[in-house]
Amino acid sequence: MAGSSFGDFLKITTFGESHGESIGVIIDGVTPGVEIDEQYIQIQMDRRKPGQSSVTSPRKEYDQVYIQSGVYEGKTTGTPLFITLYNKDMRPEAYRDIQHSFRPGHADFTYLKKYGIRDHRGSGRASGRETAARVAAGAVARKLLERRGVSVVAYTKAIGGIECAAFIEDQIERNAVRACDPEAAVRMIEIIEALAAIGDSCGGIVECRIRGMIPGLGEPVFDKLDADLAKGMLSIGAVKGIEFGAGFEAAGMLGSEHNDQMNASGFLSNHSGGILGGISTGEEIIFRVAVKPTSSISVPQQTIRTSGEEQVIVTKGRHDPCICPRIVPVVEAMACLVIEDHFKRHAALHH
Amino acid sequence: MAGSSFGDFLKITTFGESHGESIGVIIDGVTPGVEIDEQYIQIQMDRRKPGQSSVTSPRKEYDQVYIQSGVYEGKTTGTPLFITLYNKDMRPEAYRDIQHSFRPGHADFTYLKKYGIRDHRGSGRASGRETAARVAAGAVARKLLERRGVSVVAYTKAIGGIECAAFIEDQIERNAVRACDPEAAVRMIEIIEALAAIGDSCGGIVECRIRGMIPGLGEPVFDKLDADLAKGMLSIGAVKGIEFGAGFEAAGMLGSEHNDQMNASGFLSNHSGGILGGISTGEEIIFRVAVKPTSSISVPQQTIRTSGEEQVIVTKGRHDPCICPRIVPVVEAMACLVIEDHFKRHAALHH
Amino acid sequence: MAGSSFGDFLKITTFGESHGESIGVIIDGVTPGVEIDEQYIQIQMDRRKPGQSSVTSPRKEYDQVYIQSGVYEGKTTGTPLFITLYNKDMRPEAYRDIQHSFRPGHADFTYLKKYGIRDHRGSGRASGRETAARVAAGAVARKLLERRGVSVVAYTKAIGGIECAAFIEDQIERNAVRACDPEAAVRMIEIIEALAAIGDSCGGIVECRIRGMIPGLGEPVFDKLDADLAKGMLSIGAVKGIEFGAGFEAAGMLGSEHNDQMNASGFLSNHSGGILGGISTGEEIIFRVAVKPTSSISVPQQTIRTSGEEQVIVTKGRHDPCICPRIVPVVEAMACLVIEDHFKRHAALHH
Amino acid sequence: MAGSSFGDFLKITTFGESHGESIGVIIDGVTPGVEIDEQYIQIQMDRRKPGQSSVTSPRKEYDQVYIQSGVYEGKTTGTPLFITLYNKDMRPEAYRDIQHSFRPGHADFTYLKKYGIRDHRGSGRASGRETAARVAAGAVARKLLERRGVSVVAYTKAIGGIECAAFIEDQIERNAVRACDPEAAVRMIEIIEALAAIGDSCGGIVECRIRGMIPGLGEPVFDKLDADLAKGMLSIGAVKGIEFGAGFEAAGMLGSEHNDQMNASGFLSNHSGGILGGISTGEEIIFRVAVKPTSSISVPQQTIRTSGEEQVIVTKGRHDPCICPRIVPVVEAMACLVIEDHFKRHAALHH
Repeated sequence: MAGSSFGDFLKITTFGESHGESIGVIIDGVTPGVEIDEQYIQIQMDRRKPGQSSVTSPRKEYDQVYIQSGVYEGKTTGTPLFITLYNKDMRPEAYRDIQHSFRPGHADFTYLKKYGIRDHRGSGRASGRETAARVAAGAVARKLLERRGVSVVAYTKAIGGIECAAFIEDQIERNAVRACDPEAAVRMIEIIEALAAIGDSCGGIVECRIRGMIPGLGEPVFDKLDADLAKGMLSIGAVKGIEFGAGFEAAGMLGSEHNDQMNASGFLSNHSGGILGGISTGEEIIFRVAVKPTSSISVPQQTIRTSGEEQVIVTKGRHDPCICPRIVPVVEAMACLVIEDHFKRHAALHH
Repeated sequence: MAGSSFGDFLKITTFGESHGESIGVIIDGVTPGVEIDEQYIQIQMDRRKPGQSSVTSPRKEYDQVYIQSGVYEGKTTGTPLFITLYNKDMRPEAYRDIQHSFRPGHADFTYLKKYGIRDHRGSGRASGRETAARVAAGAVARKLLERRGVSVVAYTKAIGGIECAAFIEDQIERNAVRACDPEAAVRMIEIIEALAAIGDSCGGIVECRIRGMIPGLGEPVFDKLDADLAKGMLSIGAVKGIEFGAGFEAAGMLGSEHNDQMNASGFLSNHSGGILGGISTGEEIIFRVAVKPTSSISVPQQTIRTSGEEQVIVTKGRHDPCICPRIVPVVEAMACLVIEDHFKRHAALHH
Repeated sequence: MAGSSFGDFLKITTFGESHGESIGVIIDGVTPGVEIDEQYIQIQMDRRKPGQSSVTSPRKEYDQVYIQSGVYEGKTTGTPLFITLYNKDMRPEAYRDIQHSFRPGHADFTYLKKYGIRDHRGSGRASGRETAARVAAGAVARKLLERRGVSVVAYTKAIGGIECAAFIEDQIERNAVRACDPEAAVRMIEIIEALAAIGDSCGGIVECRIRGMIPGLGEPVFDKLDADLAKGMLSIGAVKGIEFGAGFEAAGMLGSEHNDQMNASGFLSNHSGGILGGISTGEEIIFRVAVKPTSSISVPQQTIRTSGEEQVIVTKGRHDPCICPRIVPVVEAMACLVIEDHFKRHAALHH
Repeated sequence: MAGSSFGDFLKITTFGESHGESIGVIIDGVTPGVEIDEQYIQIQMDRRKPGQSSVTSPRKEYDQVYIQSGVYEGKTTGTPLFITLYNKDMRPEAYRDIQHSFRPGHADFTYLKKYGIRDHRGSGRASGRETAARVAAGAVARKLLERRGVSVVAYTKAIGGIECAAFIEDQIERNAVRACDPEAAVRMIEIIEALAAIGDSCGGIVECRIRGMIPGLGEPVFDKLDADLAKGMLSIGAVKGIEFGAGFEAAGMLGSEHNDQMNASGFLSNHSGGILGGISTGEEIIFRVAVKPTSSISVPQQTIRTSGEEQVIVTKGRHDPCICPRIVPVVEAMACLVIEDHFKRHAALHH
């Protein structure tokens, strides 16, 4: 209701600001008796953490996972998991300059208008740091999906105007931008480094594929599978759009082109992106999200102070010139949470 | 949970299939003491109904609004409004042919897989007819928004590859496709009529603008205003994508281009689409949705029967060759519901 | 949120006022493929309807069930059932007298204070007539429970100070007060008739037993099975209390008396009422609710008008001198809804 | 859904087991700009903690409150508060004996049946320790209610058959059992000490009064104010019943006795307990809960082991012979949460 919970049966609730003592997540509705440990979750955390490569922020918020409840002798008990991540390497003084200013592209203005009060340090609750809790929760959902044979993989499809021409899955984790085409990756890294040098940033497109789906997941009408995925993705701060299957291209297609015909072996195409009428077809679910350029740049920009006075601002701090590589695990986490939740709803309907 | 409810405080719950006796909606959480009548709601219903022009389906499902509860002496009582729409001009026999077939692009396959049972008549619950209930509910939300000075307007931005070059708001309701550019509208209508003649269909793009917003609406983290709008829009059957502000174009922009700078008069641009960090800036909210081509076409297509046997199918019936003109009021309805719900959440937070 | 929905997976949403055109309920989350028809539901409606015996109101709101969606060829489709009940025998003019008065014991005062507007006819939304929608929905839940081997039976335990000494189950539906002891029933009927003659009313106690339970239903902490049953029961207008197992008597017992010991055959007693730590033990669930005397009496009472002016009021109309016999099916309905919902939650947890 | 969340607008989510590292609560939807500190919350924690008097368990789980997020410079920010309580004085080895046994009156049996796995140490999630998180959250709700002029006070009404004859409010916190009658308190303490000496326990009745209410709080039909209070109270482990106003006594009253008549000065009695039709009248809300005797006793009892083998069990550990004095702040906490949540719903309806 106030926005810190997500999911219906597998339900997560998060808390925490960028520069508080800790952030964390309560995960309720986890299937009991499932083996899980901190190492499994840590793998995903490390994919999201800053400082992992030349193209990410050099901040050192080493996100060490602590499971404080819900696991007994290595297995989930069915009661809520609580995972906490202590904030480290905090430099609140670095934000003193912006305490009374609205940084362009940030939520500084909207938070102050909403609440009448603002924790300005590192964007407070609006910080990208909040996504660390999602990744931890997503790892738990991923564990549950593994038992169903479902896998979720996201990757950078485009950055700064460079698009991947090939899809070579095993290359994704081998380049710093998590692109599915190693040649494109080289050029993406060049662009990012060039922008970093001049204090600017760029956006990109992240694509996600979900495999091993069964047909029949998703509720008709309002809780369509694509509607819930769209909500999950747009809830990620930097995401400004989503499209499924043919997506916006479908707007220019004919029905005879777009319809996925079938024969005895199954669907002959997948323009729908694996979802028809809000319910999974069993084909690969495929969607793309538009990621805006990082708002924090050191290029001088015009803004106002909370007093209304105009100023030119240069956002300091240690920021990612392109957030795509680090958004990849967040997209996967949200997708895992949505899909596992719908499996549980499906069970409730039929049992 | 099972997908027939939407909204948190202003909450709608719908029921009904295309060829049942009636469809309808319960609207709970309506502010008491507000004047409303069936005529006000009927205006929106008439914008969605089929048969309203040469480019829409000639079906005659005249959607007459009946308010059966929640209004007393012309004013809302604060208890649930129930609005019912009786189905008429039903021709279930027209669907006998497809009873045992999966029409390409339709939810026939996924519904049968989900439920193990399917009401095939006119797509049952998956029918676009279900959106009539949304439009009725949306009209109630629109009434509540009017008192806040908020207006919501959607229109066709592109159809069949033709894009509107101009934005002339008072032309939208004066052309059959609800385009914001009357010249583009002429060409769109030509394309639709040509496709109708050969039994094919096309998609398009619908844009929506919300004005009169206050800054501060939307909950951080999961219930971001854009996340809730995205869910609402993707819950509309034919919608395959959404983008806010610069949207997918943002993926190719620099931070220094995309960031909306400010001066003492306010924001200097609106690439964010009126939402920062999930919270309204007070600027116009602007988003676009991708509408797929109508699935029902009479071009022969390959499919299978429920028995698994292959067949060639020609979808008969009275269908819209392009659904954009009739989706416009549905997009507005869902937007009205989301925005009014967030106003109510905002009140709960502060009071 | 605004109070017209109940349940999580099996979720009902109701609408309607006493003297509107209809009341009804949308039931979402119903297992698909289950045979159900209007006759099955009608049986429960007839147990709740007025005019069924000498001790109930002679009003003739014959509650004929119409299923308008969600059933196809006699089976549930998994999409929402909509059940409507048209109001008949309405005499709004009978309420003209009380339009500007607050009847003692009624919600007239609180509704006006809450909403600033009041549909006074037959108590509007606060009417006991609203429970007809619950009974219809409860019948659907009962159908689902039957397949699980679970049965729910309620009966009058006490009326006007007369308590049942015996529990003879097959006598319950054979006496007009639905008492479990036919001898007590005779005296209860005498009391009710005597009170009716002088225009007064009395309260009573209704007990409910749920059999065929499995152990393990109910969620720990907030959604305990007894907590959800308590909410369901206290949501019935005339209910002022609930107790499980030994209930208020437990307050005077020792731990060594109250604890239900076990041996290899199972529990040796059932003071817990079949629920430990909020989770079913598999034993019979047993609880009692306190039913207040009907508020509508023709004994003169002191009250005020909406203007603040004092007056003496005599509530006219056709009322039940004791509501227990007609609350019995409502208690059962709410119990069926809660139990089936928890079965579905349980499935979601484990699958 | 899985039971660890409570409330709609002011929503709490808890985690933690008796013998894990910590327990805690996320409180979402807190009004921004409200001054709050750990000391304020600590006062309530200290009323719940064990070891506070001769009649409570000598365990030393000193519940020191840490607010880890949602407060900035002493004021709430509108984003979630996270309050954590580290477990101390844990003696998991003390529970080794009962690892494979079902203690009578405890949730050992039902948890194992539900989950197939059980964290037996100190009852795990089913421990009364879980209520510490509720008391912390309740203190935040109490703070918000203070600004509205609403106060909530609970106290022991009866223990071990001894009932309070007087209601002397300022004596409640001055006796170890929190009774509202100091003379009764003396006898209650004697009984508890005598039972402690023989390893037995007793139950009691706790009453709660809510003052400063406005009329009009509570939603009709399912989310009645009394229904939500009942759910909150029955969600407390040891509570087996609840009654409002005249409660179970109403079952034996006449309508002419029970109805609260009115004159120009207001209500002439309060048999309704301050709630009519589920909505507050503005009078004092008054209810009582039945508290069962503590399950943990050292009197030998018959039970079975998880293997099915019979055994005689003597529950060791440091337990409260009567839980009433420590349940008082828990009852208050749940009441505060329900009332504040309904204030927020009320705001959403009207604004």
